[in-house]
Amino acid sequence: MKKAPTRFYLSEDQMPRQWYNLRADMKVKPAPILMPATMKPATKADLEPVFPEKLVEQELDDETRYFGIPEEVLELYKLSRPSPLIRAYQLEKELDTPAKIYFKFEGNNTSGSHKLNSALAQAYYAKAQGLEGVTTETGAGQWGTALSEAGAAFGLPVNVYMVKVSYDQKPFRKSVMQTFGANVVPSPSTETEVGRKILEQFPDTKGSLGCAISEAVEKAVTTPGYRYVLGSVLNLVLLHQSIIGLESKLAMEMLGEYPDVIVGCTGGGSNLGGLMAPFMQDKLTGKADPRILAVEPASCPSMTRGRFAYDYCDTGCITPLAKMYTLGSGFMPSADHAGGLRFHGMSPVVSQLYHDGYIDAVAVEQTDVFDAAVKFARCEEILPAPESAHAIYGAIQEALKAKETGEEKTILFGLTGTGYFDMTAYESYLNGSMKNYIPTDEELEKGFASLPKVPGEE
Amino acid sequence: MKKAPTRFYLSEDQMPRQWYNLRADMKVKPAPILMPATMKPATKADLEPVFPEKLVEQELDDETRYFGIPEEVLELYKLSRPSPLIRAYQLEKELDTPAKIYFKFEGNNTSGSHKLNSALAQAYYAKAQGLEGVTTETGAGQWGTALSEAGAAFGLPVNVYMVKVSYDQKPFRKSVMQTFGANVVPSPSTETEVGRKILEQFPDTKGSLGCAISEAVEKAVTTPGYRYVLGSVLNLVLLHQSIIGLESKLAMEMLGEYPDVIVGCTGGGSNLGGLMAPFMQDKLTGKADPRILAVEPASCPSMTRGRFAYDYCDTGCITPLAKMYTLGSGFMPSADHAGGLRFHGMSPVVSQLYHDGYIDAVAVEQTDVFDAAVKFARCEEILPAPESAHAIYGAIQEALKAKETGEEKTILFGLTGTGYFDMTAYESYLNGSMKNYIPTDEELEKGFASLPKVPGEE
Repeated sequence: MKKAPTRFYLSEDQMPRQWYNLRADMKVKPAPILMPATMKPATKADLEPVFPEKLVEQELDDETRYFGIPEEVLELYKLSRPSPLIRAYQLEKELDTPAKIYFKFEGNNTSGSHKLNSALAQAYYAKAQGLEGVTTETGAGQWGTALSEAGAAFGLPVNVYMVKVSYDQKPFRKSVMQTFGANVVPSPSTETEVGRKILEQFPDTKGSLGCAISEAVEKAVTTPGYRYVLGSVLNLVLLHQSIIGLESKLAMEMLGEYPDVIVGCTGGGSNLGGLMAPFMQDKLTGKADPRILAVEPASCPSMTRGRFAYDYCDTGCITPLAKMYTLGSGFMPSADHAGGLRFHGMSPVVSQLYHDGYIDAVAVEQTDVFDAAVKFARCEEILPAPESAHAIYGAIQEALKAKETGEEKTILFGLTGTGYFDMTAYESYLNGSMKNYIPTDEELEKGFASLPKVPGEE
Repeated sequence: MKKAPTRFYLSEDQMPRQWYNLRADMKVKPAPILMPATMKPATKADLEPVFPEKLVEQELDDETRYFGIPEEVLELYKLSRPSPLIRAYQLEKELDTPAKIYFKFEGNNTSGSHKLNSALAQAYYAKAQGLEGVTTETGAGQWGTALSEAGAAFGLPVNVYMVKVSYDQKPFRKSVMQTFGANVVPSPSTETEVGRKILEQFPDTKGSLGCAISEAVEKAVTTPGYRYVLGSVLNLVLLHQSIIGLESKLAMEMLGEYPDVIVGCTGGGSNLGGLMAPFMQDKLTGKADPRILAVEPASCPSMTRGRFAYDYCDTGCITPLAKMYTLGSGFMPSADHAGGLRFHGMSPVVSQLYHDGYIDAVAVEQTDVFDAAVKFARCEEILPAPESAHAIYGAIQEALKAKETGEEKTILFGLTGTGYFDMTAYESYLNGSMKNYIPTDEELEKGFASLPKVPGEE
């Protein structure tokens, strides 16, 4: 039999021209998001002051199965898509496993991650609506970079609130965003009311995604012609990210493969949500039954130790509430190096599917993740982002299990990005100063205490 | 007519299985390299204590037209090759030019550059010979990273002497190399005699490629089982880099294209040498006559203002002498941000062809290069390395000329790498503190004064 290629690219003609909306096939839909003032389900009119119109439509639509990708977005997707599906031959050899390990590599673009898939879509819709600009937050900096790139592509001004810990740990990320013309502010900042309040209460805080979201939302709704855009968690983001899974599935079909296990890292859930989408469709419709594995950091274990409850998406409690696995918006995550996974909640779609038993989840400690990252780098010549390395860890575990049982399993994982801006983290791993952190039950309880009371929910 | 794809990938089956040795088709061969002690042409026996055996053979062979790429090297090439040939549609639109701009993108691997092409070959041959390890130098850090990756792939220890200015400007490059298991030392160091001497004479020196080469060579010849490997300048490196041009030419043929102009940045000459190789073959054999344009920094203008003469490749004057365009091994380049182009000499192959009129050259100032880099980044969503941006500048100039004349020229340039580790440079450009530097004639004369006297040469 002919050996499968190491890197497999679809041609541009084969690139999907529609996003797939997983919600259309969910038997139990994700619970509606609630407006904080009324605790009633959000309507189009409620959300349009915050988000671009077309994105609100996509967010609220649980029924439409496919959305056409605008021609302008497709053209810009082609600057980095289709992304390669890679067979990790060298890693397989190193692990001496009978498993076949494939990964979908989303890091071959300047944002260094899959975030560009949604950034281009969101910037396009904002521009098409005639907006003056958008605000957003960024954690590890990948989303902020992606949106800055997208802003440059469509001539749309972009304001980025960057979580302070990342701003400090990743000094060069800021310059990349500025190179693409974005305005970058460390969060919490004194530019917003919510930022000033948080600084008053916690003067030494290194910030959090939740806090940066609060600031970006406040800035958007108080600036004429501006809207807020978000790079994870939301249904609309998972919709755009479905292109990862659609390409992966088509490429695997062309190689005569179907994954037994699909592994993704989870912070807000957009990467796993996108990667698994068409495979989850098979699962929901009874066509196939792959195992779907979410890997999260033990330092911010929203799925494995969180509650399935309505919660705010931000620390300032000004966003709508989503029903999701959450540690509580008051949970203060440690300065773990996988900044992109340091969010207290989880995508409502991923949460509902996890709740309904369609997804498995594990939490992993930081040094184990970096063991996997370095092993992978030396085999596959790609330096992974710490976030992505969670998925690598999960895939290696699955491959080692297959070695024990002797099964020739087919594993697919999502390599969401590269770690060129995470060298501070790698340094601390290499010099042995990296620490692991697992929140105590008491610390979690403090976070849960911040969960809002919602009429009709337990 | 069908629109050409934005990114075009050859399949793995179509990847060249041989390197092309341009010297075989040169009417005037590059002059032989001379041993410093005797000023006589270097023999195999002279060079084998310094370089791995097979590489010495490749270096000295001016006749063999094609060299087979070892199977093990091909397998590892597949981790990042074939690299894409990209049509810069967005840049064309921005420039409003009738020219078609293509670029071959070599930055989609962790070394961030084309250097991996030769690193994998050299590490393979070193390992196959049973060596204990290799030493090398690195400027911008791309070659050092590439060799570290290659060392990890073949289980070969790697010692890297990194030019101090880059070590300081690019703090994270070091960590990347260490992640791949390499030992990294800032140069000049106190580890070698030549390093100690230079530090004595110039205690504040920020180092130079020439000086780092001296240290790496000294270390290799004084350590049992070690050899020295070099990532540019040498004939053997151009041989390995020919894969860039071979892939480019095949891809363009498949798209029904042939370049009117081929643009490359030049530091040591390996990138331009590799990119132009099969097109230069057409030129030398009368099949076609594309313009070949070398773009170098005005701060280190070896082709446009240097002398065509025998010179040492290093500052310490311990390497063999090559006949090349050179500013003199005593020329002390300024702390220009394109560290990878800051070498006093130029590949003997590129030099001879330039001398014989087959190549045009221009020198460009730093801020103009960064203007081009930022314009390109915002159009094409790729953050280029400062080195590569010299080629972008050249390509843009060619496209603007085509706009003036109304010609539908086809331009091909080499985008050798990404600039993720060059954010210090981008920062200084963005905040306006970046300075241009052009050496005065007096400064050049000082460099020329260091040129050695060689019997039989003027």
